[in-house]
Amino acid sequence: MRSVLLLALCTSTAATSLLSLRGGQGKEKVAIIGSGNWGSAIAKIIGRNVLSKDEFEDEVNMWVFEEQVNGRNLTEIINTDHENVKYLPGIKFTPNVVACPNVTEACKDATMLVFVLPHQFLGRTCPNIVGYAKGCRALSLIKGIEFSDTGPLLISDMIKDEMKGMDVSVLMGANVANEVARDEFCESTVGYKVKSNGDAFQAMLDCPTFRVGSINDVAGVELCGALKNVVALGAGFCDGLELGGNTKAAIIRIGLKETSKFAKMFFSGIKDDTFMESCGLADLVTTCFGGRNRKCAEAFARKEGTWDEIEAAKLNGQKLQGTITCKDVMTVLRAKGVADQFPLFKRIHEIAFEGLPVEKIIEL
Amino acid sequence: MRSVLLLALCTSTAATSLLSLRGGQGKEKVAIIGSGNWGSAIAKIIGRNVLSKDEFEDEVNMWVFEEQVNGRNLTEIINTDHENVKYLPGIKFTPNVVACPNVTEACKDATMLVFVLPHQFLGRTCPNIVGYAKGCRALSLIKGIEFSDTGPLLISDMIKDEMKGMDVSVLMGANVANEVARDEFCESTVGYKVKSNGDAFQAMLDCPTFRVGSINDVAGVELCGALKNVVALGAGFCDGLELGGNTKAAIIRIGLKETSKFAKMFFSGIKDDTFMESCGLADLVTTCFGGRNRKCAEAFARKEGTWDEIEAAKLNGQKLQGTITCKDVMTVLRAKGVADQFPLFKRIHEIAFEGLPVEKIIEL
Repeated sequence: MRSVLLLALCTSTAATSLLSLRGGQGKEKVAIIGSGNWGSAIAKIIGRNVLSKDEFEDEVNMWVFEEQVNGRNLTEIINTDHENVKYLPGIKFTPNVVACPNVTEACKDATMLVFVLPHQFLGRTCPNIVGYAKGCRALSLIKGIEFSDTGPLLISDMIKDEMKGMDVSVLMGANVANEVARDEFCESTVGYKVKSNGDAFQAMLDCPTFRVGSINDVAGVELCGALKNVVALGAGFCDGLELGGNTKAAIIRIGLKETSKFAKMFFSGIKDDTFMESCGLADLVTTCFGGRNRKCAEAFARKEGTWDEIEAAKLNGQKLQGTITCKDVMTVLRAKGVADQFPLFKRIHEIAFEGLPVEKIIEL
Repeated sequence: MRSVLLLALCTSTAATSLLSLRGGQGKEKVAIIGSGNWGSAIAKIIGRNVLSKDEFEDEVNMWVFEEQVNGRNLTEIINTDHENVKYLPGIKFTPNVVACPNVTEACKDATMLVFVLPHQFLGRTCPNIVGYAKGCRALSLIKGIEFSDTGPLLISDMIKDEMKGMDVSVLMGANVANEVARDEFCESTVGYKVKSNGDAFQAMLDCPTFRVGSINDVAGVELCGALKNVVALGAGFCDGLELGGNTKAAIIRIGLKETSKFAKMFFSGIKDDTFMESCGLADLVTTCFGGRNRKCAEAFARKEGTWDEIEAAKLNGQKLQGTITCKDVMTVLRAKGVADQFPLFKRIHEIAFEGLPVEKIIEL
């Protein structure tokens, strides 16, 4: 079912040399690794965008974990009906988005890889593509963070390791997949180490309804995306207590400051401006007014159950990220003996896991 | 009705020399000029605070524009029942808050003046106190801005002029009067030129539920309080169009950036950090999710009427500030030939006053 029309344009050099965005010998070729709700939304944006840009090949491959939907293969549905009926129903891709059930095949000849799958799958996925990906640059859309004994581990660094040193940029911002897919205006931020790669991903994504800024700060951008879920717990506590907008605004402000402080404590090269980009302020605001972490924390404040019970009742099988990150953050801060420098993170942890009354959220 | 218990402590030198906060010859004496909703809320905070701080005299005078409520003078009600039943019903002052119908009398012996009245009343009020206020420092809680042909005029500078060069700090932040009065946790920011004065006002106001930060940037803090109302129109347009949280978060982020740019264009000494304080980010978030400017703009987007009709229908006699500021801002920016550098402010003006469809808010 894959369109072969454009494959002729794709030379083997394109896959093995780092192309400059304009004026190179070949064109950029994008592969999207993942096809859930967010992966499908971004596939819609990328697929449409590349058709109007000379420097990109039209065909965009998307690796789809094959499954059956109403007796048909999901890849076949996507390639025939141009819609991911399971994870992004009601939204049409441009026909140049080609679903592929084999990740190695999907990444063939790609110069730009977009990682948008749960990070738990990186370990089994990357070995299948690393051999074909020399000279590629990667973009991670994966939100989350891992922790070791010594501190936080960035998902982008995990990808870099798995992909034998590939340069990895990240994309974070105030963007709910369904809103992006419906072309509601929103913004996003590319964090990059190598400017030409940041520029290339910006060109791939930016369009009038999805405005993409960029900043030379991978760690800052990525940490904004992870720590916002902790702050959102605090915002949810406020909602559960029916406190006013002032209190929540204060939580958001202090949360952004602690996020910045955390980033600077564990990583170098963090930029102050990062926290004023979409990935910082805007994403945090969105998450603290919508989002599942806020919702579950509101239920917790209303004493509707334990975290596990609330997750089961409210999230329809999805996982609550904020509580996991909250625990990990506090473990790392306490190991370093600096928890007192993060009064909001500490207070949220005390309320979520140490039995402190929710009302104490206002006494920072 | 004024408590005279403590007047003996008040020496004439206290009124004519600038006291240092601690270790001076006398104690600080606070006078509040204004007694509306916000003035009364802050009177509750200040009245309670000074009782626990040695460096302040207990008595806090509040100038009240005399009026009759249920056949009694409002000042008598306040001094007997310790409640401003007209503008902040249901909230009790500590008894050391003394209402006074004569502004000259109210400011007698004061060392710290708190201006919290509509700025239109400054011209007729200040001449009555300027002679008694040598050596005082002032704090303005007045939100708003005026414009001349050459640019914005700060309310704090208007007070300074009226008061013959008195040093004026400002207080702005995410604080709705009724929430502050109910001791719901919130934050605020003092912007100062003279650090010792900023410290004094911070000490006067800060308490566990009303956390006050300070920063050496009067103009930046004050402009945050004025321009947020313009941004809130954009947020209201999003709500009226039923756009998602992403879009509103983007409006807030861009609005904060344009506020910073505007401040730096017209004033010197603006600090980047100001926009991350409560007066910046937190107040803007609150205003864009609650507040009357947002509410009226939502109605405008729903085509419920002209601005005048909406104001009459929704605001119960109060005035819509954002539309006035929006017009003035655009006049000033166009006179300077820089409107294109403020795409959000410009777009909000085009929608509000130039007939552009509201849907264009998303095409920045």
